[in-house]
Amino acid sequence: MTDGLRVAVAGATGAVGRQMLRCLEQRSFPVAELRPLASARSAGRTVPFAGQQLPVQVMGPGSFEGVDVALFSCGGGTSLQFAPQAVAAGALVIDNSSAWRMDSEVPLVVPEVNPEAIASFLQRADGGRVPAGIIANPNCSTIQLVVALRPLHDAAGLRRVVVSTYQSASGAGQRAVDELYAQAAASPALGGPGVHSGPVVVHPTTLAFNAIPHIDVFMDDGATREEWKMTVESRKILGLPDLPLHATCVRIPVERSHSEAVNVELERPLSPAQARALLADAPGVQILDDPAASPPVYPTPLQTAGTDATWIGRIRADDSVTPAGHGLAMWVVSDNLLKGAALNAVQIAEAVFGSE
Amino acid sequence: MTDGLRVAVAGATGAVGRQMLRCLEQRSFPVAELRPLASARSAGRTVPFAGQQLPVQVMGPGSFEGVDVALFSCGGGTSLQFAPQAVAAGALVIDNSSAWRMDSEVPLVVPEVNPEAIASFLQRADGGRVPAGIIANPNCSTIQLVVALRPLHDAAGLRRVVVSTYQSASGAGQRAVDELYAQAAASPALGGPGVHSGPVVVHPTTLAFNAIPHIDVFMDDGATREEWKMTVESRKILGLPDLPLHATCVRIPVERSHSEAVNVELERPLSPAQARALLADAPGVQILDDPAASPPVYPTPLQTAGTDATWIGRIRADDSVTPAGHGLAMWVVSDNLLKGAALNAVQIAEAVFGSE
Repeated sequence: MTDGLRVAVAGATGAVGRQMLRCLEQRSFPVAELRPLASARSAGRTVPFAGQQLPVQVMGPGSFEGVDVALFSCGGGTSLQFAPQAVAAGALVIDNSSAWRMDSEVPLVVPEVNPEAIASFLQRADGGRVPAGIIANPNCSTIQLVVALRPLHDAAGLRRVVVSTYQSASGAGQRAVDELYAQAAASPALGGPGVHSGPVVVHPTTLAFNAIPHIDVFMDDGATREEWKMTVESRKILGLPDLPLHATCVRIPVERSHSEAVNVELERPLSPAQARALLADAPGVQILDDPAASPPVYPTPLQTAGTDATWIGRIRADDSVTPAGHGLAMWVVSDNLLKGAALNAVQIAEAVFGSE
Repeated sequence: MTDGLRVAVAGATGAVGRQMLRCLEQRSFPVAELRPLASARSAGRTVPFAGQQLPVQVMGPGSFEGVDVALFSCGGGTSLQFAPQAVAAGALVIDNSSAWRMDSEVPLVVPEVNPEAIASFLQRADGGRVPAGIIANPNCSTIQLVVALRPLHDAAGLRRVVVSTYQSASGAGQRAVDELYAQAAASPALGGPGVHSGPVVVHPTTLAFNAIPHIDVFMDDGATREEWKMTVESRKILGLPDLPLHATCVRIPVERSHSEAVNVELERPLSPAQARALLADAPGVQILDDPAASPPVYPTPLQTAGTDATWIGRIRADDSVTPAGHGLAMWVVSDNLLKGAALNAVQIAEAVFGSE
């Protein structure tokens, strides 16, 4: 692709949209024209891109005329309404909402994990300068999990996965981060009137100095939709429709980067040292794992916020698995706004146009 | 026991010691004399008990003369030194450190879970007004876990347990809580110079707005000592020396109450409704579990801090377990200073003297 692409970012003023603009810029994505789109609430605002302040356009009919690639980071409803319009206008839509992820016609892609889904999408899209259609970006907590699981599956076969998450406030948007800090400021230890006095609008209850086992809505079976997403999206991306996977998703008072405690049961034995070596070579993974060092080395969300990798540490045997040697545990941390959202979306675009 | 007991609290000025005094008072434990003991650092301080301010005595030779019950909440080293002196002086020691827990001669007790360990201790102690000897109080994260596991094991047989913890700063003492808040105050969002500018002395790294998969020291196999404790202590208390149990222990920015995401595999099928009914009837357990309510009901650490119960919610099937119906997941929350430490110690004393 020698001439640049005309790129729209829908939801350009949100937490993920702003990161999309930064990723496009920092990764030198071939942008000929950048069109920031948002709802009427953002009318009159500008967003920075490539040294300029670009005026935000209110999304409506005609917003996608002449657009090659549209990165969507809006709610599912907006995406259901506008993504088909963008495709009809000839654009490739990469959508960060949950609206299209489980649609059997829509690929759900983490480029390091299932690039073959992009290849078959391009085959179906046959011809044209731009392969019009929708590719879905997975949920943040799913992306870092499958980046860590893929190499282990390829080497030893996944038999079962149990994951408990430690998810940051920014997964619920910038307003959720602001609310977390406003709640924290209300804590008596920080000079406030009482931590329960802080605002509770975005989070289900006070998040500051708390842990909330409730992300997205509850479903009939007692799981949250976030937990369901991790299960069904991981199966789709890994191409393992029957993979036994159980998730418990918990919001904790962290601004950015999700952490996951992952227990894996394998079909074939794999030692922690073998797993560490495999993961160290895996695309998108960085290992931080030296408990014997002083101070001990492992990833934390505060340390990895703003970085691109999926960081893995605490790799060890899970001896509660039989037969011996078939269980592993690990601690997986990644920036939910970057690899968990904006970066993965831009990497999908790179994979599509790099492989034309 | 009609006449009162002479009670010493060793470590009376610490976070757990102070709660021990409150538990003795609030539960009307029959105290004839209360002797608060601490290290030389606390010389000259007083502690409140039953409407009085009692001067703290510096622990040394002779501190336990005439003492019937000594509740220890000191470091393991102090406990190794002084608990035998207290026993030699004829006292019953209930020790909250990890020093004696895995000693095969020392019972490790959660009264709701293994009261039989107290019964056999009393048989061995034969005679005397006070059964001199040491009973160990388990680790905080272990206690709430076994309270939740016992009824499930009795009904359906534990096959395997996987637990990931969300542990509060107070588990590392009051200084750890103070450090958490000082770090939080350093956050730019709260008007500080940068969250990494906060003090890092007690915690291994910045805990404010972070998650740290590192509690207590690392062992040779890559597990932390906290994770090892949860495994071996749970086995000892439950009387299941071979129970497959894997723990990942994580510190999160919460002041008080530990939370645990628990996945259980069972020998025999047990539905979430059956488990909920069993747990609702179990001693020491309170159920908060109604995801269909508005707002949804589940326990959080902020909500349960300062209460006595082990709170359980998010009880649901773990469908990743085969055969179907043999897996359960739950979310277990309890105040680590109360049921996780001071309250359990006082309950042990109640069980010993109530059953004489």
